[in-house]
Amino acid sequence: MSGGQTVEEFKAEREALNEIVMEYAGLPIKRFYGLDARVYRDGALPRKTKELIGLVASLALRCDDCVKYHAIGCKETGVTDEELDEALSIGLVIGGSIAIPHLRRALKAWDELKG
Amino acid sequence: MSGGQTVEEFKAEREALNEIVMEYAGLPIKRFYGLDARVYRDGALPRKTKELIGLVASLALRCDDCVKYHAIGCKETGVTDEELDEALSIGLVIGGSIAIPHLRRALKAWDELKG
Amino acid sequence: MSGGQTVEEFKAEREALNEIVMEYAGLPIKRFYGLDARVYRDGALPRKTKELIGLVASLALRCDDCVKYHAIGCKETGVTDEELDEALSIGLVIGGSIAIPHLRRALKAWDELKG
Amino acid sequence: MSGGQTVEEFKAEREALNEIVMEYAGLPIKRFYGLDARVYRDGALPRKTKELIGLVASLALRCDDCVKYHAIGCKETGVTDEELDEALSIGLVIGGSIAIPHLRRALKAWDELKG
Amino acid sequence: MSGGQTVEEFKAEREALNEIVMEYAGLPIKRFYGLDARVYRDGALPRKTKELIGLVASLALRCDDCVKYHAIGCKETGVTDEELDEALSIGLVIGGSIAIPHLRRALKAWDELKG
Amino acid sequence: MSGGQTVEEFKAEREALNEIVMEYAGLPIKRFYGLDARVYRDGALPRKTKELIGLVASLALRCDDCVKYHAIGCKETGVTDEELDEALSIGLVIGGSIAIPHLRRALKAWDELKG
Repeated sequence: MSGGQTVEEFKAEREALNEIVMEYAGLPIKRFYGLDARVYRDGALPRKTKELIGLVASLALRCDDCVKYHAIGCKETGVTDEELDEALSIGLVIGGSIAIPHLRRALKAWDELKG
Repeated sequence: MSGGQTVEEFKAEREALNEIVMEYAGLPIKRFYGLDARVYRDGALPRKTKELIGLVASLALRCDDCVKYHAIGCKETGVTDEELDEALSIGLVIGGSIAIPHLRRALKAWDELKG
Repeated sequence: MSGGQTVEEFKAEREALNEIVMEYAGLPIKRFYGLDARVYRDGALPRKTKELIGLVASLALRCDDCVKYHAIGCKETGVTDEELDEALSIGLVIGGSIAIPHLRRALKAWDELKG
Repeated sequence: MSGGQTVEEFKAEREALNEIVMEYAGLPIKRFYGLDARVYRDGALPRKTKELIGLVASLALRCDDCVKYHAIGCKETGVTDEELDEALSIGLVIGGSIAIPHLRRALKAWDELKG
Repeated sequence: MSGGQTVEEFKAEREALNEIVMEYAGLPIKRFYGLDARVYRDGALPRKTKELIGLVASLALRCDDCVKYHAIGCKETGVTDEELDEALSIGLVIGGSIAIPHLRRALKAWDELKG
Repeated sequence: MSGGQTVEEFKAEREALNEIVMEYAGLPIKRFYGLDARVYRDGALPRKTKELIGLVASLALRCDDCVKYHAIGCKETGVTDEELDEALSIGLVIGGSIAIPHLRRALKAWDELKG
């Protein structure tokens, strides 16, 4: 989907499409968006752990956009290359080779995020 | 996949690729295509309800092409914005945040279909 | 999972386990449960259509408990045998033969609900 | 689901439930059942290869009933232990560790089928 | 599957079935098992974080056995009720209501593990 | 994802992204890649059968990149049009109509590989 996009293009498209969603969204979709933001905030578990959890679940479920989104969150919360590799290894073992195309795009996005 | 396509481009590509499928398809694939067309026809349930069912199942299963296809069917059978929002809310709650990228593209297609 | 349970046993186990969930649930899980109840209420689309949508998405996603839950909802809202068959046909065609074991259990539950 | 069933119990339950399905099934479900039987018959590819394909796809999609059904088909078409191991290895690598519980039940059924 | 099992019964069945797997397993399945054990060990990320990641991915992918296995790992590594609730909230939001039956069984197992 | 790519573009992008993966990969990811290559080699089952298995599982799991990769493997091992059609029919029946967009792209790639 967003395989060929840069991270900046991804963010811009995501924002533009979310505006369309909000034009049509009734209360349940709006509340779902609120919940989705809320569960990644610092709490008993730090946001960094939550972004890693979100990243691996997204990889195992094979959602490129979600992987990219949480890769950005991992960068923002100071995840290191070693931590990312270990988290992605779990996602690959859980999700299997069917996750490899998404692993590739995850690391391409990470490489770009590192500058 | 077809995230950046207009609805017209989507229809044209779909038709071109189906022609390739039919060049290679034996009887089972042809019969499957026949079944796939048949189950959405008016019956005990009207086609409109069936298109809504197809739309939500496609969203929950995260298939952009299928979502777009049934969004077109919803438009053709007179689904309103409110009905679409309620159906998509069910798909989002069932399928979870992993369905959000597909929800975005569903509503982008809907917005385009409305002209 | 609940393949061998009667509908009454299913309801009782579901209620008992939901009580355990609520002992541990923080605000997000509680809100999610609220949303999950809300999206099936009568609105622009009648609850009957929403239960049919929930049933088919549950079949295509292959969740026995969810299928059974929405089969009960379909019975309560007056879905006929013909309507159920047409809805399940869509779920089978969308979800494929991998959904057949769940289709079997859906119709076993339906048969029990009628009797 | 059928994790604790013997192969004979599985076959008997499957047959009983298919009878309930046929009581309610309209033409599309009946045709789907026909297609499902047809695609595993000897053709350009022998049935043995098709049963192995069905087994691995069922493992990767994590359907215990489907795995058990195709394990029976593999036994009937003379699949050896070595061939089964190699096929299941592909399913495990494709599907990931999430498939391991189903791999366990696949080999338990195989062990039982061997007598 | 193992919905009605106690945690001890689950462990015993898991061990018995793994013995059958190892009777038939060639090198690839054995190596996969080795990898699966390795990725959860302490490293740049502590095992506790890795068990939480495994738990949430298992919930989002809807695998009862995997959920139970990682719930045990979470208990062993000192995960608190609050941490568990926050992790499961992420799994529920990502995976959607289709994950609720597995959330129920996750918390039932957790409740049992706490004694 | 790679729907609009030619097979040559797909191969080049795949190789470039795998280089990025290998820059970050620790031992588990490297070993997984090794396993993934190993399970498709000639053994008790010939590589041709294994590529067909990989193709159908990839179709049923709806992974365009994986489908394209195994379509190339099928071409290399002498799979005929009739064999491919029969294998894809199994994938379509197992995976359902949700697999149709991937079936289209599979046959487009096959058509290109033959030309």
